[in-house]
Amino acid sequence: MILVVGQNSVWQKTYQFEEIVRGAVNRVSHHFESAAGKGSNVCRALAVYRIPSELHAYVGGANGTKFADSCHADGLATRFTTIAGETRNCVTLLEADGTMTELVEAAPQISDEEREHAHRAVRERIRAASMLAIGGTAMTGESDDCYLDFVHWAREQHVPVILDSYRSHGKRALDAHPQILKINRDELAELSGLSVDTEDDRVAAYRLLADRYDLRWIVITHGKAGAEGYNGHAVVAVTPPTVTAVNPIGSGDSVTAGVIAALVATGRRFDECWPDENVLRAAVLEGVACGTANCMNRKPGHIEPADLEWVRTECTVSHRTLQ
Amino acid sequence: MILVVGQNSVWQKTYQFEEIVRGAVNRVSHHFESAAGKGSNVCRALAVYRIPSELHAYVGGANGTKFADSCHADGLATRFTTIAGETRNCVTLLEADGTMTELVEAAPQISDEEREHAHRAVRERIRAASMLAIGGTAMTGESDDCYLDFVHWAREQHVPVILDSYRSHGKRALDAHPQILKINRDELAELSGLSVDTEDDRVAAYRLLADRYDLRWIVITHGKAGAEGYNGHAVVAVTPPTVTAVNPIGSGDSVTAGVIAALVATGRRFDECWPDENVLRAAVLEGVACGTANCMNRKPGHIEPADLEWVRTECTVSHRTLQ
Repeated sequence: MILVVGQNSVWQKTYQFEEIVRGAVNRVSHHFESAAGKGSNVCRALAVYRIPSELHAYVGGANGTKFADSCHADGLATRFTTIAGETRNCVTLLEADGTMTELVEAAPQISDEEREHAHRAVRERIRAASMLAIGGTAMTGESDDCYLDFVHWAREQHVPVILDSYRSHGKRALDAHPQILKINRDELAELSGLSVDTEDDRVAAYRLLADRYDLRWIVITHGKAGAEGYNGHAVVAVTPPTVTAVNPIGSGDSVTAGVIAALVATGRRFDECWPDENVLRAAVLEGVACGTANCMNRKPGHIEPADLEWVRTECTVSHRTLQ
Repeated sequence: MILVVGQNSVWQKTYQFEEIVRGAVNRVSHHFESAAGKGSNVCRALAVYRIPSELHAYVGGANGTKFADSCHADGLATRFTTIAGETRNCVTLLEADGTMTELVEAAPQISDEEREHAHRAVRERIRAASMLAIGGTAMTGESDDCYLDFVHWAREQHVPVILDSYRSHGKRALDAHPQILKINRDELAELSGLSVDTEDDRVAAYRLLADRYDLRWIVITHGKAGAEGYNGHAVVAVTPPTVTAVNPIGSGDSVTAGVIAALVATGRRFDECWPDENVLRAAVLEGVACGTANCMNRKPGHIEPADLEWVRTECTVSHRTLQ
């Protein structure tokens, strides 16, 4: 079971418009709602691979009920902490010309009791997990060390960690040495303080971060350009085919799910297989295939197996062993 | 009791931003939710005058529950028809420079049974009403003649009607001759097919519509410029003082409430007092005072009595008896 911590659940509304006129009354032409938030997106994408996961999230209020009902309708296993506050809405505005504008509400406040309940659940369940995935921002009222603690607990149980969060709580968690850091190209630049324009630039940034935080893998995404992976010895870059992006929300989370799926498929322990360039190559390829297949659908984390298969065969892979 | 038909209930979200960047991720800096929709705004504003009202609306789903709870917390009397669909959200985006962009979801679909239930409620309760106010668009699945029927039923019971709706269902309702049509200046132009730039232009438009539909009063609003009223013999124009508009949503509905409040205050029947220019003058003044006081608060239909009193004394009134 993959234990997925995606604390900050989201009830996602997607509004389609011909065109939005600032300062005017804009009538929504199509309207779609779904559960979202990094955690549930990862779990939904993992389900396509029939990989069991367990989502740990805070849920509250009417949006929280919708979120929970939707996760359960999708067959996801969950360990929710019910909060007095309300799960946030995020609203995505899609215009006919492809412009996507996101409106993101702040995370709700949690109480001490709620926080302790959620942490206990992670601590209890980490033993049963084969991997821990942590994604997104923490809640308002969370301890500064929450993600750091989770990574510690995972390491105590020899459970490898993939971290998709690099600010505040996420950055702090790096001190506990998660095995895989999955961020995007801009975040790599911010975290390393280096230029990331060329592959050589990025290799320097990877080396810096891998040394600083004792990371095994760094996987970075770059929108339509795909993703790149680094394991200390090799760099693998995967470019997807051009597709019509219906809704890119959740694509980064689907990359995480694809990476996990490729690791599960090896049947080997991460500690043993991470230096293997072929494993890295398979993981980045599957990540890009899954992330690209995600954006071909309206629902975040929803992937059609046929899309996944097609994208996988159409990706371009470049692989360079470092000297 | 004022029977207020505002079918299309709204759970209103107001997001504040420093500035919205199209095509980017925008984080909401402040966030406020409330019941809205023309009907509940009118009832909330009437409550400031201690005028009893009864709101007739369709409500459904989680947004409907929030809407109903909020109306009851505000002490409003209601006759809701619960529907299987969900009450819509409307989202208002406020930017620091004062730009207000509205995102309006479509009305939910209602079933035949839901529609019949709601119509029965209006028919039953119209006898107990001293006035009927109809506002806004009808639901998807409503009969084309719903508002027309409501006006007919009101006239059968000698209950005067104020109509704030002029498209499709609203336009059809004009054939049953509501006593007061309350629209905005652009809607007057559209409905009459005439220019409405000068007062003389507008008098021509008023005459045309009053003759065509046998209307007693026409009241038109024009944003910050205030409102104008016509009773066949006189035109009264009221300009409010300049105020800082915190949230203009619900100001048109508050104008309706002010007009009703002034009529209630006469203690006379509308059939007797409508030709009295002083009654028209008092009604338009109170409408503008109430609409202006509304926009000084974040919550639609929320009016501070002190604001109302201050605005009323600061309005400029011009009054012209027609030849």
